[in-house]
Amino acid sequence: MIKIGFFGPKGTFSQEAMEKYIDGRNNYSEYDYSTITDLIFAVQNGEIDEAIVPIENSLEGAINITMDMMAADVDLKIKAEMAIPIKENLLVKRGTKKAQIKYILSHPSPIGQCRKYLNVNFPNAIIKCEYSTSGAAEEVANGLGDSAAIGSIIAADVYNLDIAEKDIHDNENNFTRFVIISKNDSPRTGVDKTSIVFSTEDKPGSLYRILDIFNLWDVNMTRIESRPAKNQLGKYIFFVDIKGHIEDDEITDVLTMIQKKTSFYKFLGSYPEFKL
Amino acid sequence: MIKIGFFGPKGTFSQEAMEKYIDGRNNYSEYDYSTITDLIFAVQNGEIDEAIVPIENSLEGAINITMDMMAADVDLKIKAEMAIPIKENLLVKRGTKKAQIKYILSHPSPIGQCRKYLNVNFPNAIIKCEYSTSGAAEEVANGLGDSAAIGSIIAADVYNLDIAEKDIHDNENNFTRFVIISKNDSPRTGVDKTSIVFSTEDKPGSLYRILDIFNLWDVNMTRIESRPAKNQLGKYIFFVDIKGHIEDDEITDVLTMIQKKTSFYKFLGSYPEFKL
Repeated sequence: MIKIGFFGPKGTFSQEAMEKYIDGRNNYSEYDYSTITDLIFAVQNGEIDEAIVPIENSLEGAINITMDMMAADVDLKIKAEMAIPIKENLLVKRGTKKAQIKYILSHPSPIGQCRKYLNVNFPNAIIKCEYSTSGAAEEVANGLGDSAAIGSIIAADVYNLDIAEKDIHDNENNFTRFVIISKNDSPRTGVDKTSIVFSTEDKPGSLYRILDIFNLWDVNMTRIESRPAKNQLGKYIFFVDIKGHIEDDEITDVLTMIQKKTSFYKFLGSYPEFKL
Repeated sequence: MIKIGFFGPKGTFSQEAMEKYIDGRNNYSEYDYSTITDLIFAVQNGEIDEAIVPIENSLEGAINITMDMMAADVDLKIKAEMAIPIKENLLVKRGTKKAQIKYILSHPSPIGQCRKYLNVNFPNAIIKCEYSTSGAAEEVANGLGDSAAIGSIIAADVYNLDIAEKDIHDNENNFTRFVIISKNDSPRTGVDKTSIVFSTEDKPGSLYRILDIFNLWDVNMTRIESRPAKNQLGKYIFFVDIKGHIEDDEITDVLTMIQKKTSFYKFLGSYPEFKL
């Protein structure tokens, strides 16, 4: 049995993404963790074999905790990716009317994804951030009927809530991309992606010189994301995804060259590309 | 009188940054806003002349709401920047002991900045996110003595709280950079920065070709930050800061060229560079 962990409790989009990744295979046993930190450390400590963690949302951007931990706190690889559409709903305790809602509870990401809806429909509600959409749903279920959660239809089922309004996300193009992390990455399939993180030397044009390497070898960069280096304001580390597998000849060459030209470099894995 | 707005209530780091920016000048009147959204729209609507908004923290990274609104929702310019060191403290209602703390309240940024401290010292506490550190401090002041806020020493004064522990931030290099936004940017001083936001054409190497322009004209890029384009997973817009003023000849040329080579381009202002 492969032990796989997800950011729980049950009813989160992470669970939905995990089921899509497992795709009916019956050699997986599932474990839920209440924080992304605990989930990632559980793989590092060998408590579980794999974890599915959110890394990027099409409206809100990077999931910082995932990026920062992969860069600095653990030595794990990405072995797969997965993306699912995110549909947000306003969930209330059975019988609660919209006019009664004083508090709106959710994880910061869904709150960001429904910002315009909330500004228009609940300009006076107090927004409370919770660790997960499921946690918010549970709190609403146990509450006084003056609150609503933003979450999935699964969460409404799990916590026996009414759906006061469906599809309240501001933008239809709402997808979250997840990565499956493990001690090892994946073998070459021919349609792969590779993730690295690095910091450049502290002089003008140093990021340009790295991208120049991709250009020289005709390597296609699909994502670049900067995060603070944390040692000085204005210094950054860069997360880059490229097309190709580390076992491809030109990718091996490119990564060797990048390693030479950077002050910090970490290979985060090669894995099959997921297409929506 | 110049009307300047800040992300309030009183006692936030935003207020501290504003006082440093105003620097004793007596032609400013101050207005506090309870959300960054309201604050930025207040400048757009002419309710106030200027606003000071956080844009980047040295540990947590970009302040997404500020970046997204500057790119898409308003037509405003950056006229100045300011950075201040952030010192976080554990604030409790007078007489509360650490062992009594069940809930920890703050804005998501300070929570992120004290992640390790919280994991070690309060592994079982429930973290509650609030809209501001001051809001958290106020809630703790009105609470049952089972909660703590993470916030500034000013907030402890304003809300009459005990400082249960000083300097609980994980990293000494904790600075927040603010920008002062207005309908107009600033005249050339000789030591300036310029901010732009753009999206590249949807083909491989298009970001590289933009950075190539900076390289050709020897322009120093001090920051690049990607944010989702919000219309498709895997598409991004890029925020870039460069050294120089739009009235400098080479900057004029560079920006003209970039405008030609991008599918979306917006000039966000030239302003004096602030040095820590």
